[in-house]
Amino acid sequence: MEKLIIIGGGAAGMTAASWARRLKPDLDITVLESTKMVSHAPCGIPYFTEGLFDDESLFMTYTPDYFIEKRKINVKINSIVEEVDLKSRILVVKENQDRIKYEFDNLLLSMGAKPKKINSDGEKIFYVHHPAEATHLRQKLWGFNRIAIIGGGILGIEMAEALRARGKRVIMIHRGKYLLNKMLDEDMGKVVTEKVSSEVELRLSEELVNVEEGGRIVITDKGKYEVDATIVAIGVEPNIDLVKNQLRIGETGAIWTDDHMRTSVKGVYAAGDVAEATNIITKKPDWVPFAPVANKMGFVAGNNIGGKNVIFPGVLGTMITKFEEYIIGKTGLTEVDAKKHGLKTVSATVHHKTRARYYPDSKDIIVKLIAEANSMRIIGAQIIGEEEVLGRLNMLAAVIQKGFTAEDLFFVETGYVPPVNRVWDVVTLAARKLYTGVGGE
Amino acid sequence: MEKLIIIGGGAAGMTAASWARRLKPDLDITVLESTKMVSHAPCGIPYFTEGLFDDESLFMTYTPDYFIEKRKINVKINSIVEEVDLKSRILVVKENQDRIKYEFDNLLLSMGAKPKKINSDGEKIFYVHHPAEATHLRQKLWGFNRIAIIGGGILGIEMAEALRARGKRVIMIHRGKYLLNKMLDEDMGKVVTEKVSSEVELRLSEELVNVEEGGRIVITDKGKYEVDATIVAIGVEPNIDLVKNQLRIGETGAIWTDDHMRTSVKGVYAAGDVAEATNIITKKPDWVPFAPVANKMGFVAGNNIGGKNVIFPGVLGTMITKFEEYIIGKTGLTEVDAKKHGLKTVSATVHHKTRARYYPDSKDIIVKLIAEANSMRIIGAQIIGEEEVLGRLNMLAAVIQKGFTAEDLFFVETGYVPPVNRVWDVVTLAARKLYTGVGGE
Repeated sequence: MEKLIIIGGGAAGMTAASWARRLKPDLDITVLESTKMVSHAPCGIPYFTEGLFDDESLFMTYTPDYFIEKRKINVKINSIVEEVDLKSRILVVKENQDRIKYEFDNLLLSMGAKPKKINSDGEKIFYVHHPAEATHLRQKLWGFNRIAIIGGGILGIEMAEALRARGKRVIMIHRGKYLLNKMLDEDMGKVVTEKVSSEVELRLSEELVNVEEGGRIVITDKGKYEVDATIVAIGVEPNIDLVKNQLRIGETGAIWTDDHMRTSVKGVYAAGDVAEATNIITKKPDWVPFAPVANKMGFVAGNNIGGKNVIFPGVLGTMITKFEEYIIGKTGLTEVDAKKHGLKTVSATVHHKTRARYYPDSKDIIVKLIAEANSMRIIGAQIIGEEEVLGRLNMLAAVIQKGFTAEDLFFVETGYVPPVNRVWDVVTLAARKLYTGVGGE
Repeated sequence: MEKLIIIGGGAAGMTAASWARRLKPDLDITVLESTKMVSHAPCGIPYFTEGLFDDESLFMTYTPDYFIEKRKINVKINSIVEEVDLKSRILVVKENQDRIKYEFDNLLLSMGAKPKKINSDGEKIFYVHHPAEATHLRQKLWGFNRIAIIGGGILGIEMAEALRARGKRVIMIHRGKYLLNKMLDEDMGKVVTEKVSSEVELRLSEELVNVEEGGRIVITDKGKYEVDATIVAIGVEPNIDLVKNQLRIGETGAIWTDDHMRTSVKGVYAAGDVAEATNIITKKPDWVPFAPVANKMGFVAGNNIGGKNVIFPGVLGTMITKFEEYIIGKTGLTEVDAKKHGLKTVSATVHHKTRARYYPDSKDIIVKLIAEANSMRIIGAQIIGEEEVLGRLNMLAAVIQKGFTAEDLFFVETGYVPPVNRVWDVVTLAARKLYTGVGGE
């Protein structure tokens, strides 16, 4: 019987397994997952830490038993792949105390990403990584009062929100000059920075030197901070160690894939945070380690393994996060990204409201659009607002994906009802400002 | 000096005036408005009736003085155009007690729409039309206890919400077999109908026969209802009386226009609720009397009058309304519309949630997508949900406007953060269901 082995039971792996199963009812599918959870969602850890829910099984969309019983997928939890030989097509897996050999016809690499580490180690240094560790992490963090967060990216600010909600004092050390500096341009990033700084002791443009005393002293190039514990949130990297010498690694450091999610080795696929893709705008290699991309890559891999020809269109880099009442989104390129790729851009930013001026509880919203200078094709968008950010962000992802110009976007027939927007929607106004050069309502 | 006259100072008229002014600083622009308000938003009347705001000047985006002083536009309020002669290019206008003649080089017809009337008349029969009448309307309505609403379209349900919030008993008489039956297919319309029927005494599939005793007796083909007053909300029609024998009227009953908003008479433009347009999907004449379309038509007319070549791409029929916590949107064609136009369709409906399963206060949302059967091009969408409906609706308007297939829509790189959606967004799932035929998460 044809054998598919999947390493990693996260979003990409379980999606691929499910689609391969649908298309090939006889395929022998085994998923090797190193933890006790599958189809897990690490994005929930900050909210678990905040205490918004207590049942850790909620991290999983489906349980291992569901996949085993309903989808006939042989899910092996607590199974650690120790060796992979792509040439002889054999894996060695540690299951409990045994070492078991597996052979495969097709292999899917979906080991995900892992947190970047600092050099120091200690009982009070924490990484936020896998939901399987969330209960332990939370128990520990709830016992501290003053906590340092190293890194002012998405995870950093989400953990800051969680800890503030638990009444903790947070000091955030960030080497960029504003928060979310890999996601937002400075003008938008400063809005977030100002908000976060009202809740958190913020140290910007500070480089971490060392963490000492097991997590209780943080030393930067500008100061020394005594805390009860340190959370390290300086980014993630693809989890490629198992295979990195056996196939092509892309220039982003993730596993190179083609548009069918095939790697450079025949019969070996990669999907999710471990895999590189092509940026739709720049056509250059890009790496977007977020769950919606992982799921879609898993869909593509599973369909192709199942015998259907499905093409992954590439990535845009859509991101969204929240700090207290601010929801913050970005899709496509920032101005900084565009410059790096040698693209000339124009941009328009509109500060607006989410409801008619006479409708109660109207909220602020800011939309920044970035277009390529001559074609006026929209290539990036950033939004900060208190409601209705997600749908607008997804709209702009669609717009960028299909190459709308500012004029095209202006003419989209948006809806209007006073409780949920203005007659000139903020996105329409931003598009109009790009298209005509004229602001205002 | 070149003279532009605009009849009607609503959304389309004032937008056109503003853009013509920007492009031609020397143009002599006069706006003739029959009421005391310009750039007014009738969409606010239900919320004013509900008592959510009291300052009727908030109905206007800008005041007449703002246009006169800041934009050098000669706004004449309380000026009723009595005669138009498109051939000799002369208008007769009643201003106070005088009759004044105006000549024009270019004329923009933006008289808007008016409520369809019933045969009966009376002191307790009300139409919801112009914000200039809102204070009077509200004072009257607040004095009644039991009120009939004739018509279960958008205006009907918005007025029902307002009156319920004021503690009124509402009986709604609707000739369709479900509410919003011109906006939604039956499956989606029934969800709204069930919700509204929990607040309102609903009489479906009942045809109005007569309203007697000045509004206090409503007689239908099935019953007779005693009420304190009657609101008639049976739809609107284009306000064409002034010119209907002098230019081409389209098959929808509105003024025919080309894609520059020109009418059949040289130098005469039409924009807003008075104007017909072309449906982007069917390429047939269509009439979409909503403010965002009116504004964009005004933009196109104003730019073309100002000497810039701007093309109006046509209409989709995007609509959005709210009843209590339900926000209800539609764009493109319903299945019923598509059938009328001879299009074969497939559809997919997904019931989902607006937040991660572990995140508090997650709300219900339902998305229905309609695609053309063979091309799988998305041609319609309907959404009912309690939050994040607007952005998703606008996303789908963009998607339809540019001809995305179900596959294209599935692969849009949507964002994900647990407080505002699920990792598989409801729109992505609906697109996947169309694309693959498979439901579920």
